[in-house]
Amino acid sequence: MFAIAPALGKANLSASQLKLLAGKARWIFRVCEAGFPTVPTIAITRAAWEELQVERLRRDTRLRNHWVACLFKLVDKDGKPPVLAVRTSASSHNSGLMPARLGIPAPSMPEDAVDPARPLARAIKHAFESYGFPGTAWVSARQEDDRARQIVLVQAMAEGEEQLFLTRNAATGAMGPAPLDGKALPRLPESVDALVALLDAKAGRHMACLVSIDRGDVRFLSARSVLASPGAELEAAVDRVDRKVWAPQSAVNRVDPARLALILHPRLKSPEEVAPIAMGLGVSPGAASGIIVFNPDDAVRLRARGKHCILVVNETGPADIEGMKAATGILTARGGMSSHAGVIARITGKPCVAGVRNLSVDALEMVCRIGEREFRAGDRLTIDGTDGSVYLGALPLAQPQIGGAILRLLNWSDASRSIAVRTNAETVESAQTALSFGAEGIGLARSEHMFFSPERMVALRRMILSEDEDDRSRAIAGLVDFQTGDYSALFSAMRGQPVNVRLFDPPLHEFLPRTDEEIEETAASLGLAVRALRLRLERIAEINPMLGHRGVRLAITYPEILQMQMQAVLAGARAASETQAEPVSVEVMVPFVSTASEVSFVRERATTILDNSGLTRSDRIRFAFGTMIELPRACLRAGDIAGQVDFISFGTNDLTQTTFGISRDDAPAFLAAYQRKGVYERDPFVTIDAKGVGEMIEIAIRRGRQANPRLKIGICGEHAGDPASLRFFAGLGVDYVSCSPYRVPVARLTLAQASA
Amino acid sequence: MFAIAPALGKANLSASQLKLLAGKARWIFRVCEAGFPTVPTIAITRAAWEELQVERLRRDTRLRNHWVACLFKLVDKDGKPPVLAVRTSASSHNSGLMPARLGIPAPSMPEDAVDPARPLARAIKHAFESYGFPGTAWVSARQEDDRARQIVLVQAMAEGEEQLFLTRNAATGAMGPAPLDGKALPRLPESVDALVALLDAKAGRHMACLVSIDRGDVRFLSARSVLASPGAELEAAVDRVDRKVWAPQSAVNRVDPARLALILHPRLKSPEEVAPIAMGLGVSPGAASGIIVFNPDDAVRLRARGKHCILVVNETGPADIEGMKAATGILTARGGMSSHAGVIARITGKPCVAGVRNLSVDALEMVCRIGEREFRAGDRLTIDGTDGSVYLGALPLAQPQIGGAILRLLNWSDASRSIAVRTNAETVESAQTALSFGAEGIGLARSEHMFFSPERMVALRRMILSEDEDDRSRAIAGLVDFQTGDYSALFSAMRGQPVNVRLFDPPLHEFLPRTDEEIEETAASLGLAVRALRLRLERIAEINPMLGHRGVRLAITYPEILQMQMQAVLAGARAASETQAEPVSVEVMVPFVSTASEVSFVRERATTILDNSGLTRSDRIRFAFGTMIELPRACLRAGDIAGQVDFISFGTNDLTQTTFGISRDDAPAFLAAYQRKGVYERDPFVTIDAKGVGEMIEIAIRRGRQANPRLKIGICGEHAGDPASLRFFAGLGVDYVSCSPYRVPVARLTLAQASA
Repeated sequence: MFAIAPALGKANLSASQLKLLAGKARWIFRVCEAGFPTVPTIAITRAAWEELQVERLRRDTRLRNHWVACLFKLVDKDGKPPVLAVRTSASSHNSGLMPARLGIPAPSMPEDAVDPARPLARAIKHAFESYGFPGTAWVSARQEDDRARQIVLVQAMAEGEEQLFLTRNAATGAMGPAPLDGKALPRLPESVDALVALLDAKAGRHMACLVSIDRGDVRFLSARSVLASPGAELEAAVDRVDRKVWAPQSAVNRVDPARLALILHPRLKSPEEVAPIAMGLGVSPGAASGIIVFNPDDAVRLRARGKHCILVVNETGPADIEGMKAATGILTARGGMSSHAGVIARITGKPCVAGVRNLSVDALEMVCRIGEREFRAGDRLTIDGTDGSVYLGALPLAQPQIGGAILRLLNWSDASRSIAVRTNAETVESAQTALSFGAEGIGLARSEHMFFSPERMVALRRMILSEDEDDRSRAIAGLVDFQTGDYSALFSAMRGQPVNVRLFDPPLHEFLPRTDEEIEETAASLGLAVRALRLRLERIAEINPMLGHRGVRLAITYPEILQMQMQAVLAGARAASETQAEPVSVEVMVPFVSTASEVSFVRERATTILDNSGLTRSDRIRFAFGTMIELPRACLRAGDIAGQVDFISFGTNDLTQTTFGISRDDAPAFLAAYQRKGVYERDPFVTIDAKGVGEMIEIAIRRGRQANPRLKIGICGEHAGDPASLRFFAGLGVDYVSCSPYRVPVARLTLAQASA
Repeated sequence: MFAIAPALGKANLSASQLKLLAGKARWIFRVCEAGFPTVPTIAITRAAWEELQVERLRRDTRLRNHWVACLFKLVDKDGKPPVLAVRTSASSHNSGLMPARLGIPAPSMPEDAVDPARPLARAIKHAFESYGFPGTAWVSARQEDDRARQIVLVQAMAEGEEQLFLTRNAATGAMGPAPLDGKALPRLPESVDALVALLDAKAGRHMACLVSIDRGDVRFLSARSVLASPGAELEAAVDRVDRKVWAPQSAVNRVDPARLALILHPRLKSPEEVAPIAMGLGVSPGAASGIIVFNPDDAVRLRARGKHCILVVNETGPADIEGMKAATGILTARGGMSSHAGVIARITGKPCVAGVRNLSVDALEMVCRIGEREFRAGDRLTIDGTDGSVYLGALPLAQPQIGGAILRLLNWSDASRSIAVRTNAETVESAQTALSFGAEGIGLARSEHMFFSPERMVALRRMILSEDEDDRSRAIAGLVDFQTGDYSALFSAMRGQPVNVRLFDPPLHEFLPRTDEEIEETAASLGLAVRALRLRLERIAEINPMLGHRGVRLAITYPEILQMQMQAVLAGARAASETQAEPVSVEVMVPFVSTASEVSFVRERATTILDNSGLTRSDRIRFAFGTMIELPRACLRAGDIAGQVDFISFGTNDLTQTTFGISRDDAPAFLAAYQRKGVYERDPFVTIDAKGVGEMIEIAIRRGRQANPRLKIGICGEHAGDPASLRFFAGLGVDYVSCSPYRVPVARLTLAQASA
């Protein structure tokens, strides 16, 4: 029990008392300490209160005397015992807390100050009770300790009118006083400005502030922090630097990267002008609009034609993965946060609304109903996975803009950041987006993505389905030209920043015809009977494609593919180098290796192709050779591998799949139960598993660096966009991370904080 | 150049000369040394011969004088220069070697002894030339050195008749003299017996021996080792112990476990009585006979009815895996050693004949032709994967018998073996086979194999396809009883030896209906519409079942399955304990864990079920709880896991799949190319990859033992039957290995050698 804002003089708290200041108590003490008129307030801890009650049963009075003396600190220079208010002061808001109990008469006798039958002591007792009890029978020592430190405030009643306002605008972050959500701003005297500035500087966040105003005199009553929009938080942080309240580095350290990420999704241009036709759960943030499709194959087909589509299904399953990746957004009738749709959507960064109760889908008839409305394939919808709303038609979307505040913050952040941030991109468009966000190169260009258009797909299928090397070589010849153009454009866009091209990786069957129509088309283009094609397709089908004929295994079994890719990359680099001043910096990366012998096999052939290309490393093209580390064995043998490469880059998705033995696509079937039953604390595909996958990476980095001290080390899995994972990677001393374009700001900020 | 069998006296070779004795030279020296009459012989190395030629060009004579002096060692006490023979003496036989050149006159002048135009020197020159040159342009220092040490023998021509015979019978191993393959045994004087005993003792293997017989006098000419049948080698080894030529431990050390394995396959009872109707490549050894099936589903169905079948296809692919496992043998028209069929057959231990050129299969019409003969489903065939022959009808097979010699050898081997050998078995029949081979317990009983019969499959499908917990519980109730009987029988068969029951492991979908017929049956038994069942099946289909909803994930998501299995195991143990004197020793093993939290989750529930069962550990049932370690993460976290278990057992198959990121079922598509191109030295699914998977195991053992010094450690993957892998495991200090019944002798012998 102690005064945090005495009626006279200063509080002069001891170090242990300062440590007890949680919630409102903290701000009352600090505002008073800074000299702003503050309503007199004392604080009592639960420990002290319980001791007082024990003493009272013993009919002792030593503590009670101390308590009464404390209450006297509320008496101002007039000497009148004030009317009192009792308030809770929780460190986090909780709807069960007792509302302020006002107008309590000051106790007239010392015993009244501790007797729970009397108004003051009763209010204090109720306040402590409202903090609630931990739900479990077993209470840890830590919880016991926290409970003992809970505080109740006894405050003199202020005269005049109480007013509540925000220290900053909740939507824009502009300096307040500002109105509370949905309320008008009360008329406030000018002297409030000083309080607002004081609180903003002390708290460094949006605060709701309660004052009493008595004939123009403002007295501070209490304050608590409030949640503002991520954009407002960002603007406020930058504004505090402009006001010299914070050094730039403080702004960098105090903006939460996870909140920053929320600014970086597409959103509705004018949400206030439209009403949703249905609401579900927003399970993966961002808005998306497009043509309705009811099955994954249609999504793939539309995507290949450059159309946006919304995949509408009752629920998704592993067979829908390719369709989900191809769709712009996903809408499901069933499921929640940990449904298959939710998990996959968040990982792949697709907006997703799940569990829309009045949606029913008949996939066979290709029709769905939302309430009374009927939709067919080809109709348009817009969804917002941030709040779960569904809108009629294709509404205009605002693409995330990297505004002035974010740019300034990120520029400051560069001062303390030592790890480079690159992006995963294979189109000029996404490369440019990433550059505008400050990407310092491309860390992963998935070369197979260049085949996602109908004509190229036909050529690719011809190559995959060739029965012998000759056939294959002919099919390949047609594939080099357009790739050369793609690479040249990509290199030019990056203006001398490094571009990492990953050799062909996914299981070939992902590119094979699936529907009857596609099979007929492909058979015709190959001059094969449909039945013969079906047999061939059956023969190359795989049981576990994730662990199948992919990555480096393709480069070794079909050296023609390697030849084609190297030719295209080198020709593209030459073309780009002829149109720009900066040298082109190309990195060729071999995926999915498990032995050093695979690396040396490909390296030898790649080197031969490079040697025969007429380009040399001293040319205006810089060429580096490296490998992706995404299998446990590659981690263990990183020493052998490192001697043969210029760089390694960790593919943390596949490394998580193999280290855990979990197929990400199939995991939703049990991951929800795992999290519900507490078997996993978090989804290892969202935040890197430091104790398992993380140790694999550590082992590889240690062995790799030991064998090759000049080895460059990167991370290119989706974890590179997750703040918690990024902090872990920073601790490992990697040279760069590579994430999706919209995650570049998140990575820059997180890594700046981690290096500071 | 030196005498290895001088006409007079002993050879008295220096240490460096002794080292040069390769091939025949070695036996000539040792027989002569032992005092048996031997034809006088001298040896000259290529190094010496080339120096002689260089000296000759320089017109020097120092070395030549030495050479001529050497030739004089062939002159017997009569002082007559003998007629000569020149022979090669390679350490391994090679068809290009020069046949013995006989009847060469002794050189009359010193120059004749080195002049390649004269008969002796010409024969020596030709002999050296016939050794051939290494094929590559680049010759290693080691190869150069080996070449310099090549030897040619110059021998006095023996008078009398030359005779060739074996030291032991090639088929039975009985002591010789014995006839060469397909020849009659020549008439030999009794004194040959001493030579046979001498050579057998010196060489310790079957030898072909050349002697000259002159009026009853036997003189030794040369000898070389020959390959006998594995059974003959074994009998000979045991016989040498009986003759006190070897100590028992020498017999144990000198029998090759890989050759021993060849005795342990089923074979034709009377191959001499039948002629094959076709020949292919024997790509996986052993004989099999049964009903012809043309597709994997029929194989699965027949197996469920307890029938033997031969899967006959043009070639196999990943979709055929289950059918291959269900078939008794596999016959393919295409492919070779590294075809999909060959690889999978060897791993699963199925006899397989591949690449039968005059076989053609029409799977749709369910008919095949071998030459002119036509076969339909239901006809019978017999194949022998040891030599690639195919026979008409189901011929009687001889199951491998563990005869007297093998038992004696294995009993000797136990003296030096410190690692226990258990077996992988879930039926009483295979348990008894393994016991007869000396298995010391069951290290892996795959509980799901108890569902491989039509009625049980129906019940199991009902459980898997239940939509909620109630449905599932009802379906499960019917599954406990017959399992109890199975476990009770298995525990009784093992008479107190430990039995390790692995909880339900494989992806559920492996048990789901596939054909239209099965789907209709299942729908009827579930009271579901066929269309609804198809939808449900689609929803639970997995992309990568190997990394999907299996192992411990099933026990956690469907606790009813765990409950059912524990109940059945405990009831079975109780029943067995009531009929036998020995306490029942049960180990329950949780498969496919990646975190300690999974282990503790299952352990808690299993312990509760045990506590409620009325059985206690002090009862006549010993109960242990452990986990399979088959994922990289489990290896890294073995310390956390070890604190919660009594034992761990490595599943090296799955650990190889995840460490390499290779699906064993899909690997044949690239593994052949990998081995052909030298990327992999050996198939990691046959011999454990010491540098990757092996390090994973080492890490786990170190961390596991550190956390729990009483931890029992086993190996239960198929590698536990491979000699090279077993030697590696022995070095890690595991407590036991567990292999298929027919591999138990191989493991006992290999581990005895490794521990010696």
